[in-house]
Amino acid sequence: MTNLLNPTIPELKNNLKYALGEVFETTFSEHPEIVQSEETETVKGLSAIVGLGGNISGYLALHMTPEGACKIAGNMLGMLYAQVDDIVCDAVGELVNMLAGSLKRYSSKNGELFKISIPTIVWGNDYYTHAPKDAEQILIGVKSLSSLFTMQLVVSMNY
Amino acid sequence: MTNLLNPTIPELKNNLKYALGEVFETTFSEHPEIVQSEETETVKGLSAIVGLGGNISGYLALHMTPEGACKIAGNMLGMLYAQVDDIVCDAVGELVNMLAGSLKRYSSKNGELFKISIPTIVWGNDYYTHAPKDAEQILIGVKSLSSLFTMQLVVSMNY
Repeated sequence: MTNLLNPTIPELKNNLKYALGEVFETTFSEHPEIVQSEETETVKGLSAIVGLGGNISGYLALHMTPEGACKIAGNMLGMLYAQVDDIVCDAVGELVNMLAGSLKRYSSKNGELFKISIPTIVWGNDYYTHAPKDAEQILIGVKSLSSLFTMQLVVSMNY
Repeated sequence: MTNLLNPTIPELKNNLKYALGEVFETTFSEHPEIVQSEETETVKGLSAIVGLGGNISGYLALHMTPEGACKIAGNMLGMLYAQVDDIVCDAVGELVNMLAGSLKRYSSKNGELFKISIPTIVWGNDYYTHAPKDAEQILIGVKSLSSLFTMQLVVSMNY
């Protein structure tokens, strides 16, 4: 049931990089650096996740440290945050929502590719995330705002 | 921008109960018991989450213990599972996906209310989940398959 008009995985990966550049430039006046995803695979502690449903089904997640989340929120809101609280969670949720919105615009040239859910934030000292075994996964390591984080896009083309 | 044709929060809560009954009857031949959500608020360790995007935006999550997840997977697949692994995660993901699909059918009498993302599974000994501050939340405690779990529906009507 694969739709030939849907973007391919490499196209989605490129679009996600465009989205990253667009959102970080407009939000932080920053040009984020893409790094090997192996460099960021141990970066964890807080995950911001939005679901994507439509012609493709999946989710977009940002994985970072709590300190990284505080820096992102601080840069978005012009404040200093020492620890994760509701405001930091909402700010990081807004960031992943903007990234998903930008990815959607870049990826919907043949019609709306997906709808976006509200974000869920997960954080803690000991947790794992699991994607369905039959889904494809794109991992992009990013360095920006003096922090490292991982963008993870999980998609199933014919879910 | 609230759409008057969208179901209300009490209607969504009722539809979620119908969905629970339908899915558990067809999958497990079980009639799950609704309990006070306070009874299940400490039940944690594994969360299965699907995003909902469209006329409403939100997510549906099941929160349970790892033992509860193993029992659910065991009942779905006719096997015994002693600990959480990829198969258990995929089974619990499939369950939350079925619940969201049933909720969607009950809630889409005036047109498709939302699209469903693929599930994310989060598990671990120490994690918290956070929903956006402006979203509404429905919590339903459930007892079934000798386990307790919480169904959490988070929705924003005009996100």
